[in-house]
Amino acid sequence: MNKTILLNKRPHGKPSLDDFKTVSEEVPTAKEGEVLLKTVYVSVDPYLRGRMNDAKSYIPPFELNKPIQSGIIAEVVDSNLPDFKKGDFVSGILDWKEFQTSKGKGLNKVDPTVAKLSSYLGILGMTGLTAYIGLTEIGKPKEGETLVVSGAAGAVGTVVGQIGKLVGCKVVGITGNDEKVKLLTSTFNFDHAINYKTTPDLKKAIKDACPYGVDIYFDNVGGEISDAVLANINKFARLPVCGAISLYNETEVPIGPRLQPILLTKSATMRGFIIGDFAEKFPSATKQLAAWLTDEKLQFSETIMEGFDTIPQAFLDLFDGKNKGKMIVKV
Amino acid sequence: MNKTILLNKRPHGKPSLDDFKTVSEEVPTAKEGEVLLKTVYVSVDPYLRGRMNDAKSYIPPFELNKPIQSGIIAEVVDSNLPDFKKGDFVSGILDWKEFQTSKGKGLNKVDPTVAKLSSYLGILGMTGLTAYIGLTEIGKPKEGETLVVSGAAGAVGTVVGQIGKLVGCKVVGITGNDEKVKLLTSTFNFDHAINYKTTPDLKKAIKDACPYGVDIYFDNVGGEISDAVLANINKFARLPVCGAISLYNETEVPIGPRLQPILLTKSATMRGFIIGDFAEKFPSATKQLAAWLTDEKLQFSETIMEGFDTIPQAFLDLFDGKNKGKMIVKV
Repeated sequence: MNKTILLNKRPHGKPSLDDFKTVSEEVPTAKEGEVLLKTVYVSVDPYLRGRMNDAKSYIPPFELNKPIQSGIIAEVVDSNLPDFKKGDFVSGILDWKEFQTSKGKGLNKVDPTVAKLSSYLGILGMTGLTAYIGLTEIGKPKEGETLVVSGAAGAVGTVVGQIGKLVGCKVVGITGNDEKVKLLTSTFNFDHAINYKTTPDLKKAIKDACPYGVDIYFDNVGGEISDAVLANINKFARLPVCGAISLYNETEVPIGPRLQPILLTKSATMRGFIIGDFAEKFPSATKQLAAWLTDEKLQFSETIMEGFDTIPQAFLDLFDGKNKGKMIVKV
Repeated sequence: MNKTILLNKRPHGKPSLDDFKTVSEEVPTAKEGEVLLKTVYVSVDPYLRGRMNDAKSYIPPFELNKPIQSGIIAEVVDSNLPDFKKGDFVSGILDWKEFQTSKGKGLNKVDPTVAKLSSYLGILGMTGLTAYIGLTEIGKPKEGETLVVSGAAGAVGTVVGQIGKLVGCKVVGITGNDEKVKLLTSTFNFDHAINYKTTPDLKKAIKDACPYGVDIYFDNVGGEISDAVLANINKFARLPVCGAISLYNETEVPIGPRLQPILLTKSATMRGFIIGDFAEKFPSATKQLAAWLTDEKLQFSETIMEGFDTIPQAFLDLFDGKNKGKMIVKV
């Protein structure tokens, strides 16, 4: 049988396991012009929370009683398409199913001999592209500048910080526990990391860590952490807004200090983005990321959960910061 | 005697007349390397409110018991400098004094035969440059796009809207009374104008006026008006933040809906600026503005108050929206 995970109901606030439902169906067969795919790795990402709301956004919402979708690495187990043969591995935005068919649209072949398969969901996939393109195209880092990253120990954050160091920035990360603080400054080469949960005055802690002010703030979280960073930005600061995980589960419109006066007095630029906005940069960005990876200039971290049934829990764990780096489920 | 207006105390919230003090002193004489200037026109501008606070900003705060400064057109009445002769007119950031000396630094000669003198404080001065550069460099308007301007009947707003029309945008202005609504759509060529004070649902009114959404929001006011516009922005919207007059007199940190989720889902860019950031663009911008003015493609509006003693009241009137276009005091 073939398990599928559906959206059972739309989460109100923080999602819970009963927002999901697992059903079983026959394993499909590949018809003419189709491949049959077997799911190997499933990416769970904070942005999926937005698609669970019935709200217009940059991607259409998930439908009730239909499969959730995310980035998946799958093995081709049967093929009636000339571009794919049995035994190939592909990445794509696919359904949370153990087996599914595809007409090949949006599938990209990935090579397990070049990098390990799961890395195509992370450093060589959407995560790495988001970090590289968001930082370089919007953050525009210059040598000697100070970069602050929130959600620093997450999939994107760990990569952003390392790229910041590669281009000569001072890099400060903000994260939620002491183990991650240590990870950031040891494995990921951050100059400094701050545990926002145990720091009584975050604004002051950022000021102390960034004596020359903050030139770039790569924002994965939004909310009060971002308020504290914004209080420390320099003139002409650049603020790529990549995510707002602290706000995704809010049931009321979140309020906070108005930003216009700060952006005005600092001539600062805040820009939201999703990686799809920059599709024309993917080839050059992927090439650069792969080169750094080959040269061992980039480390990456994964938290891998085991088993198809753990996908919903892995997703929920993102909101408790249980992942270090990329959260992936191995099926 | 020579009157000077000093900052008597720092305003708390909305400024009042007793925040200013007028003193009299001897008319100075031009020493070697100096000119003696007689003030002719004084610009009062919302941004001056920020300099009255004891807070670090993009320009140092005014000092207590020292003269306020703003953009001024003055006549050279005595000169010991080779570049200036008696009878010349100059513009510069000068003290609120009837007469003052200057070493010439920051003074620009202006020609009353090319355009009327007061226009060098407005359309051919900082106001026109702010409108043109903010709109073109940050707003990046494209033909057929929709531009919304707040503070639309103010000095900058009237110019922004007209330039928007010149480059082929649909232009909607937001202002605070019906007379200004009429002025915007008649004299200043706006497609539509909204009186935010009498509109029960501003968000809906903007939606109705902008059926294809808002591509550019030129923000002079901040606060709830901006919230209503932001609820209607399109993907890839650009939001130059030029001013935040609705917030300048707040005594607490103003709060409102957090912007990061909107900027994120719309891949939008919000950027604060002051005109000094773009000094290298002044010559080309001034040339373009002067050409449009000569071709009668730009109208400008001034509210001129009479008499040196009215300067503080003219400044206060800005916060009640009593000006149409540029607020100027003729001495």
